[in-house]
Amino acid sequence: MSAPHERDTREQAVTDKVLASFADTPDARHRELFTALVRHAHAFVRETRLTEAEWEAAVGFLTRCGHITDDRRQEFILLSDVLGLSMQTITVNEPDDPRATEQTVFGPFFAEGAPEIELGGDAAQGAPGQPCWVSGTVRDVAGTPVAGAVLDVWEADEEGLYDVQHGDGRVSGRARLRTDDAGRYAFWCVTPTPYPIPHDGPVGDLLTAAARGPMRASHLHFMVTAPGLHRLVTHIFVRGDTYQDSDAVFGVKESLVVDFTEHSAGTAAPDGRTPDVAWTSADFDIVLAPEETA
Amino acid sequence: MSAPHERDTREQAVTDKVLASFADTPDARHRELFTALVRHAHAFVRETRLTEAEWEAAVGFLTRCGHITDDRRQEFILLSDVLGLSMQTITVNEPDDPRATEQTVFGPFFAEGAPEIELGGDAAQGAPGQPCWVSGTVRDVAGTPVAGAVLDVWEADEEGLYDVQHGDGRVSGRARLRTDDAGRYAFWCVTPTPYPIPHDGPVGDLLTAAARGPMRASHLHFMVTAPGLHRLVTHIFVRGDTYQDSDAVFGVKESLVVDFTEHSAGTAAPDGRTPDVAWTSADFDIVLAPEETA
Ligand SMILES: [Fe+2]
Ligand SMILES: [Fe+2]
Repeated sequence: MSAPHERDTREQAVTDKVLASFADTPDARHRELFTALVRHAHAFVRETRLTEAEWEAAVGFLTRCGHITDDRRQEFILLSDVLGLSMQTITVNEPDDPRATEQTVFGPFFAEGAPEIELGGDAAQGAPGQPCWVSGTVRDVAGTPVAGAVLDVWEADEEGLYDVQHGDGRVSGRARLRTDDAGRYAFWCVTPTPYPIPHDGPVGDLLTAAARGPMRASHLHFMVTAPGLHRLVTHIFVRGDTYQDSDAVFGVKESLVVDFTEHSAGTAAPDGRTPDVAWTSADFDIVLAPEETA
Repeated sequence: MSAPHERDTREQAVTDKVLASFADTPDARHRELFTALVRHAHAFVRETRLTEAEWEAAVGFLTRCGHITDDRRQEFILLSDVLGLSMQTITVNEPDDPRATEQTVFGPFFAEGAPEIELGGDAAQGAPGQPCWVSGTVRDVAGTPVAGAVLDVWEADEEGLYDVQHGDGRVSGRARLRTDDAGRYAFWCVTPTPYPIPHDGPVGDLLTAAARGPMRASHLHFMVTAPGLHRLVTHIFVRGDTYQDSDAVFGVKESLVVDFTEHSAGTAAPDGRTPDVAWTSADFDIVLAPEETA
């Protein structure tokens, strides 16, 4: 029998040979990424004593991810999401200023060409759900209001689907608006509700094997841009939501959890309207980091 | 600005949350694999400070691998091969007895139903190339000859293609034979020549980015099975081959490099034949590990 150190020498020799093969990669960043990938992937195989059957299962899993992926479905992003790699990548690239609003996952449901609305306009655009009034102020880290900041907001409807998932060409649950001279914004939308990520493919099987659920905590997406300031991609989450602690993609951050206050039908809203159904409201003040701190 | 330890705490919190989500995986081996995958993949992202653009490029790369993969092309195996992960998996599962013949990559070109040949028969089966006589003895680790061991042998022709790659239904460059009562085997084939792995897809682009070539060192595949003994999957390599030190899949092991002796036309071969062209010969003795040491 070979001693443990002989095994180790034999396996390290394979890793070293592979690392050497990447040593002449012309681009320094590529070289860094390729060699780090080799080190970590080889460490995974050696540490887990991966069997040949498990290796075959992994090849089969990736193949299924590739074959289910098309223009409307991106299984590799879902895989990255449920392994927390999307969230870790965002965290690693988070602006360094602790005063800035935290980021979270972008998700696959942003769409270009959303309707532009006035301050106080309706981002629901016919999406079914409970009316919700969201307002706040956009500032820089020094506290100065940012006038004319562009806010993109998007969300699933109460059926748990984004407009693009309905597949009927509708455009709803998304809009673009701008802050006023005092940096203020406000819009109507629908109260966010939980929804499952697509889980009828290999990533769903992975979640099942891990006894994990596919649900995302209720949220509303924001993307906020302004000249000279770092682009903010984030969500707000509904405090008290069932899936707050088990969000399938690990997107929840405490600073992004917001009170959604409930109001009964007939209560006057800040814009003077009096909805004839129960509605909610949420305040969310946004702080944008300077462009160069990322 | 947040201090380095704050960054670290923030990023470790993401990793810890993901690890916790896999803690209830019912199957212990699945749990071990999932959590090891999370640890190593998160370490990769954090250590390389992976950018969001690089993350997108990785998703695009895997998507291309998935879309080029079909019944005849397996890009994820090629990816595993060029990252040395196939070879590392084989090395990790190598029987523990240092007397046993070493293993190497199985490769994608084995096919069931190869022609059965007699001892001394022709495995070339019409494949173009220089005649080559290969012989040796199969023994167990105690040195006892193994009678009736089944050898599958397969190889590319001098055009650098396996029969299945020609796409015309031919069966050549592959055969099955059995050792005699003294454990001996011998067959004719063609002298192995170098060939490129398929490199017109994303894995080819990776090799190009790394300034690496797609060539495999000249080799002949063996799979040897016998009751009660560990299945051997290996190659023999031609000593002095151009690609010995740069094999695209890291399959070369010194113990598998064999002298291919050259003989001029008209020299008598061991089986009494006198080829009218130049030919080569190689000796390769095989030692099979016991079944249970793997
Ligand atoms: Fe979402
Ligand atoms: Fe081969």
